[in-house]
Amino acid sequence: MTDSAKSVYARGGFGGSILADVPVALLVVDFCNAFLDPDMLGGGNIGKAAERTQVLLAEARSHGWPIAHSKIAYRQDGSDANIWIEKVPRLGKLIEGNCATEFVDALLPQPGELVIRKTVPSAFFGSDLDSWLKVRGVKGLIIAGCTTSGCVRASAVDALSLGIRTVVVSDCVGDRAVDAHEASLIDIAAKYGEVMTVEAVLRTTG
Amino acid sequence: MTDSAKSVYARGGFGGSILADVPVALLVVDFCNAFLDPDMLGGGNIGKAAERTQVLLAEARSHGWPIAHSKIAYRQDGSDANIWIEKVPRLGKLIEGNCATEFVDALLPQPGELVIRKTVPSAFFGSDLDSWLKVRGVKGLIIAGCTTSGCVRASAVDALSLGIRTVVVSDCVGDRAVDAHEASLIDIAAKYGEVMTVEAVLRTTG
Amino acid sequence: MTDSAKSVYARGGFGGSILADVPVALLVVDFCNAFLDPDMLGGGNIGKAAERTQVLLAEARSHGWPIAHSKIAYRQDGSDANIWIEKVPRLGKLIEGNCATEFVDALLPQPGELVIRKTVPSAFFGSDLDSWLKVRGVKGLIIAGCTTSGCVRASAVDALSLGIRTVVVSDCVGDRAVDAHEASLIDIAAKYGEVMTVEAVLRTTG
Amino acid sequence: MTDSAKSVYARGGFGGSILADVPVALLVVDFCNAFLDPDMLGGGNIGKAAERTQVLLAEARSHGWPIAHSKIAYRQDGSDANIWIEKVPRLGKLIEGNCATEFVDALLPQPGELVIRKTVPSAFFGSDLDSWLKVRGVKGLIIAGCTTSGCVRASAVDALSLGIRTVVVSDCVGDRAVDAHEASLIDIAAKYGEVMTVEAVLRTTG
Repeated sequence: MTDSAKSVYARGGFGGSILADVPVALLVVDFCNAFLDPDMLGGGNIGKAAERTQVLLAEARSHGWPIAHSKIAYRQDGSDANIWIEKVPRLGKLIEGNCATEFVDALLPQPGELVIRKTVPSAFFGSDLDSWLKVRGVKGLIIAGCTTSGCVRASAVDALSLGIRTVVVSDCVGDRAVDAHEASLIDIAAKYGEVMTVEAVLRTTG
Repeated sequence: MTDSAKSVYARGGFGGSILADVPVALLVVDFCNAFLDPDMLGGGNIGKAAERTQVLLAEARSHGWPIAHSKIAYRQDGSDANIWIEKVPRLGKLIEGNCATEFVDALLPQPGELVIRKTVPSAFFGSDLDSWLKVRGVKGLIIAGCTTSGCVRASAVDALSLGIRTVVVSDCVGDRAVDAHEASLIDIAAKYGEVMTVEAVLRTTG
Repeated sequence: MTDSAKSVYARGGFGGSILADVPVALLVVDFCNAFLDPDMLGGGNIGKAAERTQVLLAEARSHGWPIAHSKIAYRQDGSDANIWIEKVPRLGKLIEGNCATEFVDALLPQPGELVIRKTVPSAFFGSDLDSWLKVRGVKGLIIAGCTTSGCVRASAVDALSLGIRTVVVSDCVGDRAVDAHEASLIDIAAKYGEVMTVEAVLRTTG
Repeated sequence: MTDSAKSVYARGGFGGSILADVPVALLVVDFCNAFLDPDMLGGGNIGKAAERTQVLLAEARSHGWPIAHSKIAYRQDGSDANIWIEKVPRLGKLIEGNCATEFVDALLPQPGELVIRKTVPSAFFGSDLDSWLKVRGVKGLIIAGCTTSGCVRASAVDALSLGIRTVVVSDCVGDRAVDAHEASLIDIAAKYGEVMTVEAVLRTTG
């Protein structure tokens, strides 16, 4: 048990390539104000990831990729409260309409881009994202957002299970702590999807 | 970004208690021969976890908990091949009927216990596990199995999303590498479910 | 092939009882203005069903049942357009915020009652309804709404598959045409759930 | 309420075309021995549909379409018993390995064709069918099988919700009673998918 996951995965032939086929879509996970604020649900390298995602989002728009944005948002009246709020009480501040729940200004959805309201980690769970991708003829999914170990990872695992080839963009995803971020990127690259920088993604899909 | 996930989670009030309500069920994830063999898909502390799970399984049976076992198994004729096999080529050896695919002798399902055949990480995804728990009046789920960062974690995340209060049993789950195991237990405890030793679980549910 | 479904089901022992266990919740399906207007998506006995549902809803509130309301609503900008709009072009008028898309005045959700926005037939598909029921400790589901052969039936089939015992309230569900309404009630009673009048439901659960 | 569903749908502009795009796959629903036996779960025009499906299946194989077959099958030990068995007690005879549960001889799956074991109406619910179609690059789904008002209809509704354009082949689907069969074909054609004869399907996709 002294080996690192990274070396075990390498030795075991994990991490085969399932590069996203074109046409691709972009999924931007949970870049809302609360996740950019270290005193709420943010911190770590999330801010840097949001900055890099501006580049990716601009390119996605210029290429005409279908674009989806997810956000965690609960109703004010408690009608959709669930056990995740009990587990992570700060999520209870993510009330629809609150500033904390709004997308960050630099990454606002444009008209025609899908907005997924969710109360769970994965952007696929209990949403129409899978159908939405299919209807738009998408074969590969590019994921940016936060947190790497949370909603990004959960979405990447669901994408794999749904048969969608996925790239997680390493410099466009962020987490509160570097160890959680790194551990999840290693697991994703070995077991669930491709992990590439924004430059590499744009080179491949352009 | 110098903080560890553990300290960030603690400071942020993550890790609220969502202790599994009784009645509970036991889910044993993927304790098949291939995952006990370091030359196939095993290694690390998976063997130790399988040993401890014998204790848990015996207790579960003596208490009459509903018990489910999952296994990864593909069909010989390639009819259900998916992108996970491309990503982790060794999964392609997990053919129905092969010895590698059989449950380990010490943890064989007994008649009346549910066996879930799957070709994805989560034991909930594309299975009848959620319905099965509901029909049996279960409110809380106890998870053992492997790997901690793979199918155990994916199942715990789905359980949370499905509204099922879950305990991951720290000494009954194992992974190929200690860093992947530890990172996932920290994430699960902070964000998705309870993490407790087998003794603590039995004290709570007995 | 001269027998009716009703007689074939009777002879074959279909229609066993899976009476909803208490505690129950109430699901009100798609009672929005467009479905009360024969020139849009309404007609038939939908108006009568909405009237009877006022009685059921009042009782549900007085008993403190968890209550969920679903509605079909697409975004103005076309971002969530799907193939259902191509199949039934009038659905494309159900734009969020439009009067056609609002719940009928007599059946408005109250604060604390779940509102499910959907773009598919079943209120369970791609929603958090299953988790929501579980978190609220619900064991049985009472369904009112429209249309009987459309979203009511699709929701009842999903409820069965999810392991939820369901009652469709015969005088609180309606359809555009009596033949579609009757045929679906016969199928539901034989294969998916109980079919009972509102009086019988209240006698059983009261 | 004197109008028939058929005339209401026609007047309301229901039944837009969502013709399945190529490449298509074929789904054969539940053509097992029990459903060909009027004393078990069969009767009506199911036998005729199974006969016509031989033509469709042969063509599908000659065109190299991906082919999936579903069957209802419960485990002998009761481990996966669910509420559907309570509702339709005869389903309890569909035990894995029993002759009643085997595919009819004339429609046996060939190696490489997907076999979906299920304990619910829809072939999509709790199965890997959606992922399987995606991995094989399928855009449209052709459905044959039984019963029209049961598992065929449930599968067609799920296909629509999942964003899959579907054709239900009118002479390759059957039901125990002509009224249930007809009512469901009318609903499907108006609201969920195309309804075409096997000749028309082969003309379109050939």
